[in-house]
Amino acid sequence: MSELRIAVVGAGQMGADHINRITERIVGARVSVVVEPDVARGAAAAALAPGAVALTSFTEALQRDDIDAVLVATPGQFHETVLLPALAAGLPILCEKPLTQDPVSSLRVLAAEEATGKQLIQVGFMRRFDREYAQLRALIESDRTGALLALHCAHRNPTTGEGYTDSMLITDSVVHEIDVVRFLTDSPIVAVEVKRPKRNSLAPSWLNDPILVLLETESGILADVEMNVNIQFGYQVRTEAVFEKGVAEIGRTAGLTLWQDGQYGGAEHTTFKTRFADAYDAQIQRWVTATKKGEIDGPSAWDGYLVAAACEAGVRAQETGERVEVQYVPRPAFYSSGRAIPVTV
Amino acid sequence: MSELRIAVVGAGQMGADHINRITERIVGARVSVVVEPDVARGAAAAALAPGAVALTSFTEALQRDDIDAVLVATPGQFHETVLLPALAAGLPILCEKPLTQDPVSSLRVLAAEEATGKQLIQVGFMRRFDREYAQLRALIESDRTGALLALHCAHRNPTTGEGYTDSMLITDSVVHEIDVVRFLTDSPIVAVEVKRPKRNSLAPSWLNDPILVLLETESGILADVEMNVNIQFGYQVRTEAVFEKGVAEIGRTAGLTLWQDGQYGGAEHTTFKTRFADAYDAQIQRWVTATKKGEIDGPSAWDGYLVAAACEAGVRAQETGERVEVQYVPRPAFYSSGRAIPVTV
Amino acid sequence: MSELRIAVVGAGQMGADHINRITERIVGARVSVVVEPDVARGAAAAALAPGAVALTSFTEALQRDDIDAVLVATPGQFHETVLLPALAAGLPILCEKPLTQDPVSSLRVLAAEEATGKQLIQVGFMRRFDREYAQLRALIESDRTGALLALHCAHRNPTTGEGYTDSMLITDSVVHEIDVVRFLTDSPIVAVEVKRPKRNSLAPSWLNDPILVLLETESGILADVEMNVNIQFGYQVRTEAVFEKGVAEIGRTAGLTLWQDGQYGGAEHTTFKTRFADAYDAQIQRWVTATKKGEIDGPSAWDGYLVAAACEAGVRAQETGERVEVQYVPRPAFYSSGRAIPVTV
Amino acid sequence: MSELRIAVVGAGQMGADHINRITERIVGARVSVVVEPDVARGAAAAALAPGAVALTSFTEALQRDDIDAVLVATPGQFHETVLLPALAAGLPILCEKPLTQDPVSSLRVLAAEEATGKQLIQVGFMRRFDREYAQLRALIESDRTGALLALHCAHRNPTTGEGYTDSMLITDSVVHEIDVVRFLTDSPIVAVEVKRPKRNSLAPSWLNDPILVLLETESGILADVEMNVNIQFGYQVRTEAVFEKGVAEIGRTAGLTLWQDGQYGGAEHTTFKTRFADAYDAQIQRWVTATKKGEIDGPSAWDGYLVAAACEAGVRAQETGERVEVQYVPRPAFYSSGRAIPVTV
Repeated sequence: MSELRIAVVGAGQMGADHINRITERIVGARVSVVVEPDVARGAAAAALAPGAVALTSFTEALQRDDIDAVLVATPGQFHETVLLPALAAGLPILCEKPLTQDPVSSLRVLAAEEATGKQLIQVGFMRRFDREYAQLRALIESDRTGALLALHCAHRNPTTGEGYTDSMLITDSVVHEIDVVRFLTDSPIVAVEVKRPKRNSLAPSWLNDPILVLLETESGILADVEMNVNIQFGYQVRTEAVFEKGVAEIGRTAGLTLWQDGQYGGAEHTTFKTRFADAYDAQIQRWVTATKKGEIDGPSAWDGYLVAAACEAGVRAQETGERVEVQYVPRPAFYSSGRAIPVTV
Repeated sequence: MSELRIAVVGAGQMGADHINRITERIVGARVSVVVEPDVARGAAAAALAPGAVALTSFTEALQRDDIDAVLVATPGQFHETVLLPALAAGLPILCEKPLTQDPVSSLRVLAAEEATGKQLIQVGFMRRFDREYAQLRALIESDRTGALLALHCAHRNPTTGEGYTDSMLITDSVVHEIDVVRFLTDSPIVAVEVKRPKRNSLAPSWLNDPILVLLETESGILADVEMNVNIQFGYQVRTEAVFEKGVAEIGRTAGLTLWQDGQYGGAEHTTFKTRFADAYDAQIQRWVTATKKGEIDGPSAWDGYLVAAACEAGVRAQETGERVEVQYVPRPAFYSSGRAIPVTV
Repeated sequence: MSELRIAVVGAGQMGADHINRITERIVGARVSVVVEPDVARGAAAAALAPGAVALTSFTEALQRDDIDAVLVATPGQFHETVLLPALAAGLPILCEKPLTQDPVSSLRVLAAEEATGKQLIQVGFMRRFDREYAQLRALIESDRTGALLALHCAHRNPTTGEGYTDSMLITDSVVHEIDVVRFLTDSPIVAVEVKRPKRNSLAPSWLNDPILVLLETESGILADVEMNVNIQFGYQVRTEAVFEKGVAEIGRTAGLTLWQDGQYGGAEHTTFKTRFADAYDAQIQRWVTATKKGEIDGPSAWDGYLVAAACEAGVRAQETGERVEVQYVPRPAFYSSGRAIPVTV
Repeated sequence: MSELRIAVVGAGQMGADHINRITERIVGARVSVVVEPDVARGAAAAALAPGAVALTSFTEALQRDDIDAVLVATPGQFHETVLLPALAAGLPILCEKPLTQDPVSSLRVLAAEEATGKQLIQVGFMRRFDREYAQLRALIESDRTGALLALHCAHRNPTTGEGYTDSMLITDSVVHEIDVVRFLTDSPIVAVEVKRPKRNSLAPSWLNDPILVLLETESGILADVEMNVNIQFGYQVRTEAVFEKGVAEIGRTAGLTLWQDGQYGGAEHTTFKTRFADAYDAQIQRWVTATKKGEIDGPSAWDGYLVAAACEAGVRAQETGERVEVQYVPRPAFYSSGRAIPVTV
C-alpha cells in the first residue's frame, strides 16, 4: 500500500485540523473522503486535501473502494453510529476521544470489534504521544526516584464556549487526565471524588468552574486534578509526580524538571540532531514545497557567498590575531530581487 | 508534480540523515537516487528509501529521468563539482552549508547560476528555520525593545573527531553564526577578529579550542561568538541579544526569554493546538504507519471503555459530592494480548 | 531601652538556633538568660551568647531583673506552663509554633493574656516573614489576577526522626500551612479532610506518609496540601495559587513566577540596592566583626591598587581602541601574607 | 570592645545607606560620627543613627575619642585625603571602591599603610560577599568541571545621571568586574581592550554606551564584559563561566545554574534552616523592634488558637478519613483590634 487513503468523518474544528495535518505533515497517507452532513462545511474541508471528495453519508462512503481507514472526528454522541458500520466493514479506525460517551455503549463497540476477530480501533488520547508525558512515564518505569506515590495535575483552558456544560468538565476535559493517570500509573482508576474550590466569576453562569477531582488508582496512587476552563491567561497542562525520593514536573516551559538528591535540573541536548531536529525537517519540507512551485524559500547562493567571504576573513583573523576586514563583490542585480534576507520562518 | 524526486549526493552522516528524513517525515517528496562513491555506503543509504537506486557517479545520475531536484551532502570541497553540472542541468538544489569553501569558488557558482537565468540554489543554513531564531528575529524587527546593539553567541559541542582542524572552527562551526548574525541583523559582516581564551586541555593537541570571535556588521552591531568544540557536557547553541531597552535570550531550555520593564518572562501556550501540535502529528503518523502493517499503535478500544466508565463515575461524583467507586466488566481475553498500556512513545 | 534582654526558654535545636541568631544577627537585643532543665545543654547554649547565664528553672528566671522579654522554644507540650507565668509577669513573649497543642489550652492562654490587659504574645509562624509569601499575599490583595480560587501546597522534608508520629504530620508540619492558608486568604479554615496517596516505603513503618490534606476556608477557597516528610531529595515548600485570570507559584527556585495574559514571568532587579543588599550587609558585618579582632576580612589596599592600575589601562584602551597591557609594581612583602585573595564568603 | 564606633565620611547616597545599614542591621557597631561638608545633608544623615554627631571636618573628627574605625564613602577623588590621616591615626578603614582613582595615588596609600606596620584598609568590593559569586568561586576551586577557560560578564544599569562620563564606564562600573575577574580567577589582569557595539540612542549624547571590554588574566583566561548603563529594563549583573567540561551561570533569577554531563540544574534546599533563614531573622528582628515599643508585629495568640483548633480537626480527619468541620469560639473583643491578619511583611 503506497498511500493510506483515509475517510475523515466529521469536518468540524478537529476534523478540519486532522485533514490539514494528514495533507501537509503526514507521510504515506492522504484524505480520500470527507463525510460531513453540513454540505458547505464538508466542501470546505475536502478542499484542504487535493483529490478528496465530500459526502454527506457515511453509508455512501462505505460503498466506495478508495477508503483504507477511517478517522472519526464527529461529536462524541455520534461515535457509535460511525464505529459500528466501520467495524462491520473491517476498516482500521482512529477514533477521537472519547470512544463513546458512556460505558454501556463502549461495551457494545468492544463486542462489535471482538466480532471482527481483530483489534481495529485506536482511540485519540494524543497526550500519550507527547514527549514530556513519555519522559515522565519512562522516569516512572525506571524506578530511579523510587515508587510513584501521587500525581498533582492541572488542566487549564482560557475560556469555554456556549455549549460547554458542567458534566463536560469531566467527559470532555478531565477525560484526558483519566486516561493519562492510567497511562502513567499502569493501573485502573477505582474511585473518583469531586471537590469545589471558589467559583470563577468569569466563567459562564451555569458552570461550577473550577473543580478539583481526586482519582484513586487500584495501585493506591492518588491523583488530584485541577480542572479549570475559564482561567483566561492561557492553555496549560501540567503534571507534578511525587515519588519516594523526588519530584518531577512536566508541562511548564522547560521540559521535564526533576528534583532529586538536593538538586533540581533537566536534560540538555548532547547533539545538534536533537537540538535542530525540527529546523532540519522544516527546512527540507519548505524547500520541497517551494521547489514544486519553482521557487526557493531559504538562504540563496548569494547568502552562501557572503558567508564564504566572511569565513575566509575569519580564518585569516584566527591565524594573524588581527582584525580582518571582509571584502565582497557588489551584489549582482540577479540576486537583488526581494529582500536581502528572505523571511523563512 | 505529485512527488518531488530527489537525488541525494553524498551518503555520509548528513546525507543518510536527510534520506531518512525525506522518507519518513517529509510530505510530497521521495529519494529516487543516492550518489556515493563508496559502494557499500551508497547501498546502505539507498536501502533507507524504498525505490531509491544507488549510483557512484553524479554524471550518470544526471542522465536519468527520475530526478526533479538535487540535495548536495558531500564534503564541502566537492560542492562545486556537483553544483556546476546540476545547475547546467537546470535542477533545483539544496546545498548543505557551506556553499563552497572559499569566496572565489562561490563566485564561480553564482556566475553559473546566473547563467541559468533562475535562482536554483538554496543553502542549508537550517538555523533560520529554528523556532527560537525566528522568534528572536521577529522581536528584533518589532522594535518592541528598541534597536539591537550587540549579540553574545555561544556554540558548544561536546567533542570533535580526528579530522577536525583549527580552521574548521571557523569554516565548519562559526560558519553558522556568520550566517545567523547576518540573518538576525539584516546587515553584512564587515570585520572579524579572533581572540584566545585559555585552551581546553581536553581538546585534541592540535586544536586551539575554544576561541572568541568578534563579528562586526555594517550596521555597527558587535557580535561575540564563543566557539567551543570540546566542552564535554552537551550541545548548546545560545544567543543573547542586547537591545536598547532589554535583553532576550534563546537556546537555553525554555524558549525565548525576555527581560524588559523590570520583568523577565516568556510565552505560555494559549491553545492545545500549539501545546500538543507535535503529539497530534506523532499520533496520526504512527497510526498511519501501523495501520499499513495491520496493527494499532496507541490506546485501544479497551482503553476507551475504561475511560468511559471512569468518566461516568466522575460525573456522578460531581453531582453528588460523594466518593464514587468505578465498576468495570472483566477484561475480555480478546483485549489481553500485549501490555495493558502499549509503549506508544 | 538600649538592648532588649531576652530569656530563651528551651535550648534544644530551635532554642540554640535562636540564641545564635539573636547574638550574631539581631540588632538591639541580647540573650541574658537561658532556661533549660538539661544542665549540660543549657550551659552549651548559654555559651553561645556572651554574658548569658544558664538556669534550670523558669520560676527562678522570673525573679531576676535582667529579663525584658521571653522567647519560648520548649517542646509544644510545655508551652502553656511557660506562657502562663510569663504573662503573669507582664513580659512580652515570642512563642514558637504551636501556641499550645490543643484549642482548650490555647483558650486558657488567651484568657490569661486578656487578663493582663495587653496583647503580649506573638506566635512563631515565621513563613509570614518570608519574602515570597509576602509577594504572593500582595498579589492576592492587588486583585491584579482576579479573585483567588484555590491553593495547591506542597511541604516536603527529606526524612523524619524517631519521635515523629502520624498526628505530628498535622500538628507539627501541616500546622504551618494551616496558618499560611489563613494568612493568604484572610479567612479562617472551616473544614479539613485527609486523603492517603500511596505510602512511601522509605518512611518509618509507623508513619502513613505522605498525606493529602484538603482545607476549606470560610470564603470558599479550597487548599490541597501534600504533606510529605520522607521524600529524601530535599526540603521544599511550594505554593501554587490559582486565580480567576492566572496562576502564581512560590517556593521553587526563582522567586514568585506569574502566568498571566499568555505569558509567564517574574521580577528582575531594578537597582543594585536590592540585587546586592545581602552582600552589602555581609560585607559590613564581617568587617565590623574582624575589626574588633584587629583583622581585615575582605579585599585589601593591595587589591585596591591592582584594580586602579587595570582601570587606568582600561581607560587608555577605551580612548585608543587598542589592546593595552597593565603594568604593576612588584607586590611588597607587607602584602604577601596569606592568600592572594582572602576567602571572604 | 562592646560596640565598634564608626565615623562615616561622606553622607551622599552610599554614605547614608551605610549609616542606615549599620544602625538597623549590623550587630556590634554604631555610627558615632558623620563627616560631611554639606551641613544639611550631614545633619540628615546623622539623624539616621541615634547618638551620632555631624561634623564638617574629618580633621576635627580625628580629635574625638569616640571613633574606633572609619568608613570612607566620599567621591573617589577625595579618598586619598581621608585615607592618609586615618592611617596616620592608626584607625581601621573600610573604603568604598575604588581605593583611589589612579595607581600612583594608590601606591601612596599603600606606602602610608605599610608605614603603620599593619594592614588597616579593606576596600568595598562587595560582590565578593555575594552568595552567588561565592558559589561560583567555590565551583572554580573544586575543579569539578575542569579548569576555567573564559568568563562572559554583563553589567547592566537602567540609566545614568548627568555627571556620568565615558571614562566612568571603566572606573565606576567595570571596576567591579576588574576586581571580580581577579577574585574568580585568582590571577591579575594583564591586558585590556575595549570594543564598541552599536551605540544606545537612549544614552546621554556624550556617552559611548554600551562597550565590550576584554580582560586577559595572567593565567590566560579571557573575560568579556558587556558594560551597559542605559538599558532601561532593570539592573542585572550576570556571569557565565566556561569550563573545560561545562558551563555555570550566576546572576539570573535562580541562583547558580550548572550545565554538566548532559544536564542543567541547581541546588535545592535540604533544610528549613536555609530555606527560611531570612524569614527567621526577619521575624526575630521585627519582634525585637516592636517589643521595645510595647507592640507586637506578627501572628497573635488568637492566630495561635485558630491554628490549634484547625489542627485538632485535622488530626480527627486524619484518623477517621472523614471531612471534619472546625469549631471556633467567637473572637473576643480583646483580639478584635486592627486587622484580622496583621500586615507583617
